[in-house]
Amino acid sequence: MPDQSVPQARTSAEVAQAPDSTGGHGVSRRALLGTAGATGLVLGASGGAVGYAAAPAQATPLTSVGSDRGMFHGKHQPGITEGLQARGHLAAFDLTAGAGRKEAAALLRRWSTTAERLMAGEAAPHDDTDVARDAGPSSLTITFGFGHGFFDRTGLEKQRPSALDPLPDFSSDRLDKARSDGDLWVQIGANDALVAFHALRAIQKDAGGAARLRWQMNGFNRTPGATAHPMTARNLMGQLDGTRNPKPSESDFDRRIFVPASGDPAWMANGSYAVVRRIRMLLDDWEKLSTAAQEAVIGRRKSNGAPLSGGDETTPMDLEKADAKGEYIVPLNAHARITRPDKNSGAAMLRRPFSYHDGFDADGTPDAGLLFVCWQADPLRGFVPVQRKLDRGDALSQFIRHEASGLFAVPGGAAKGEYVGQRLLEG
Amino acid sequence: MPDQSVPQARTSAEVAQAPDSTGGHGVSRRALLGTAGATGLVLGASGGAVGYAAAPAQATPLTSVGSDRGMFHGKHQPGITEGLQARGHLAAFDLTAGAGRKEAAALLRRWSTTAERLMAGEAAPHDDTDVARDAGPSSLTITFGFGHGFFDRTGLEKQRPSALDPLPDFSSDRLDKARSDGDLWVQIGANDALVAFHALRAIQKDAGGAARLRWQMNGFNRTPGATAHPMTARNLMGQLDGTRNPKPSESDFDRRIFVPASGDPAWMANGSYAVVRRIRMLLDDWEKLSTAAQEAVIGRRKSNGAPLSGGDETTPMDLEKADAKGEYIVPLNAHARITRPDKNSGAAMLRRPFSYHDGFDADGTPDAGLLFVCWQADPLRGFVPVQRKLDRGDALSQFIRHEASGLFAVPGGAAKGEYVGQRLLEG
Repeated sequence: MPDQSVPQARTSAEVAQAPDSTGGHGVSRRALLGTAGATGLVLGASGGAVGYAAAPAQATPLTSVGSDRGMFHGKHQPGITEGLQARGHLAAFDLTAGAGRKEAAALLRRWSTTAERLMAGEAAPHDDTDVARDAGPSSLTITFGFGHGFFDRTGLEKQRPSALDPLPDFSSDRLDKARSDGDLWVQIGANDALVAFHALRAIQKDAGGAARLRWQMNGFNRTPGATAHPMTARNLMGQLDGTRNPKPSESDFDRRIFVPASGDPAWMANGSYAVVRRIRMLLDDWEKLSTAAQEAVIGRRKSNGAPLSGGDETTPMDLEKADAKGEYIVPLNAHARITRPDKNSGAAMLRRPFSYHDGFDADGTPDAGLLFVCWQADPLRGFVPVQRKLDRGDALSQFIRHEASGLFAVPGGAAKGEYVGQRLLEG
Repeated sequence: MPDQSVPQARTSAEVAQAPDSTGGHGVSRRALLGTAGATGLVLGASGGAVGYAAAPAQATPLTSVGSDRGMFHGKHQPGITEGLQARGHLAAFDLTAGAGRKEAAALLRRWSTTAERLMAGEAAPHDDTDVARDAGPSSLTITFGFGHGFFDRTGLEKQRPSALDPLPDFSSDRLDKARSDGDLWVQIGANDALVAFHALRAIQKDAGGAARLRWQMNGFNRTPGATAHPMTARNLMGQLDGTRNPKPSESDFDRRIFVPASGDPAWMANGSYAVVRRIRMLLDDWEKLSTAAQEAVIGRRKSNGAPLSGGDETTPMDLEKADAKGEYIVPLNAHARITRPDKNSGAAMLRRPFSYHDGFDADGTPDAGLLFVCWQADPLRGFVPVQRKLDRGDALSQFIRHEASGLFAVPGGAAKGEYVGQRLLEG
């Protein structure tokens, strides 16, 4: 709990500014402002309540990294279209035996209040741990979803979307059920690891007696400013990852990623479906390949993500191009060929992953890979058809292992005064 | 391995600049330069070899976060006095059965070459994984140390410093031997998680057949720019942590932290001893305390680190100050009272920790706390006497648990053309 005897003051004029369009990444106008602060321009500014007490005397201004913030209220929940954050937590909870619809509604109300406050850089409503004290919101986002089991436990079976039907089994799956599924799913992302951990603890405590942690995973992406190439992330295989992601500027983006406002079921209006896969990378095997062999597996240049058929990262892949011997330049089983949206009936998903590294097995094998999170209006037209194709003949499949899986219905954003899922729980 | 068919070019004029004095933290002159780059001032600069090929066309300049670099060569090894980094890996290796002094020397030579290159933002000497490609050095430091067992295995028992004698048992220790000790210790820190992981994999591969990973731990600190209070870190208990750290500007800093140039043994000249403890925080218990009760445990204000006797974070603690009832304001068993250097015969250590969070136990208890790393010229005058006192009556002890421990001799920095430990291995 913040110490109330210390006057409330903002630590930086930056904190309450509107978020920028970069999702907290790249070098933004706000970084310019933040840096200007080093010369004293914004030091000592005050006004507005941030919830935490003033920082000590030697405080220096936050840069954009700390001061950028996402908005909790909106048409969609946060954490879907924002830029990748440096730190992420995924967690699933199961409702406890005694908890039903009423307790779930109260939980989602608590969670929404906490998310709104923390995303604004304020303290948690109850018993704040102070771990995020004197940091800015750091682009924190908190996103909530419902799993298949939630609807039975709350007597809301009739409201369960058919899109939540269990994913088909894939032959390459090696799923750990204890780290899969769950009644409730929470995604936390932030550009500061302590801000993210602070949020995770607050969310866990809010669960109280209503829900119990089922599984939890930690991930990361690049720190803002660490790379000169902020558009596409690199994964732990060293590949650019997400080159073909649909862009919000594309005319069919909303249709592919979000349930329409006329949503079916109605409570999913402006929502989306998240497929979550813990994909272990078999790095010891992968790293034995030459760069050329790795590029043949992916179908793209490792250095800059350009298709093997030529051009740069954004150049369309020429699937028909052949070499002097008549062999396709982009191999038939290349990952990028198989996942091309125009070869999958227009299927598209927005990939928004975190890398993970949970140490090493006893034999020195890294337990590392991708916390794959993808977003789509309909998993049967997004993840499923693509994964079916990959399952049949993807050259990458021998270097990865799907170890956990989840599918969650993520309702639209809460309006002011509303909590996430209210239209389901009080519909 | 970088793709040699793409022209070598710097992605930013920032990369080759000298490191700044903030250790990559705070808002520096270089952040100003980096931000200026957003207006195009430094875009497209070239010259100098960075080892990675040019980033794709939409490259934007690195900010200080990415471009700051530490120096591998110097009087001391890197990673001791630099500011805390956002991501850290600690790893211990044991020499394999067939490896002796010769293999150890070759290993330290490989490791030194890799550390020098990666810290400069270049690719690893062999089979680079590309995971750090198009990121800057991001204040990467790589630090090497020798454990007690190293000297038996290499026939160098006579060179083993008495300071490496095993630490005494403390009554509160609950040490996991499998995650303690080790022949060789490597500390990696960087402000970008992928840069740190890239270094860890390169170091692991360099070990080859000479050494095998014994244990490995991941940690984190705040992201540069996320906090308005960069001087002192906050830990996962929400406390400012490191307030009383000796400062390089203090006249006795070197004497306390580093072995003298006349070192005994000679090969440890300008070296230091690292005590490493995995300290689990019992957060479920800690967070049940009121803020006032937590502050009595520590002896300092949670909000700003000021002593309970008054002032601000830097105000000396008044140990004699009493309240109206004659009770000490700073309780006798307060952590900050017991650890006061002037009550411990001047014992001082430089604490440079990472927080850690390895998920949750099955009952929802967080496996989180501090990867405590402290540096001193002599553990018997640094860590040991302080820990002895804490072991006897520290109010904090019931909220923490030491789960792993290591003590390592970290030789001085390598001169140009030299490798770390050369004076030991070829002495």
